[in-house]
Amino acid sequence: MLVRPKPGILDPQGQAVESSLRHLGFAVEGARVGRLVDVELTTDDPVEARAALERMCEQLLANPLIEGYEIEFPEHTSP
Amino acid sequence: MLVRPKPGILDPQGQAVESSLRHLGFAVEGARVGRLVDVELTTDDPVEARAALERMCEQLLANPLIEGYEIEFPEHTSP
Repeated sequence: MLVRPKPGILDPQGQAVESSLRHLGFAVEGARVGRLVDVELTTDDPVEARAALERMCEQLLANPLIEGYEIEFPEHTSP
Repeated sequence: MLVRPKPGILDPQGQAVESSLRHLGFAVEGARVGRLVDVELTTDDPVEARAALERMCEQLLANPLIEGYEIEFPEHTSP
């Protein structure tokens, strides 16, 4: 799962990364920092897997007030 | 960019997530936590962009001793 700060939400980590990259000489217009959570499931059913991952994001992994999430499957297990 | 702890490297955040998910009743075999950094570049050249992103990871965004990184482009800008 990819968890990102929602657009418009202040992202101090992203601001720090952006400023550090500029100091290192990189031409960047912006940077946002989020979290990446890889979960190994016990089910092989892609529909069941996606439903479980959505519930995990809503209950634990993302703060719905300030963060959005995206679910990705590795290519060899993609539904 | 996706930055993940290398295989074999202890990941206390991942362990905490795994344990919390189990407590919530989810059947999981493992969880690993990494970082996600979205960077907006000023270049449109995909070759130049990839080279800059690799240098950013090596110089600032990933710790090469314990972390691996992966560069992804949004679909509409993919080379």
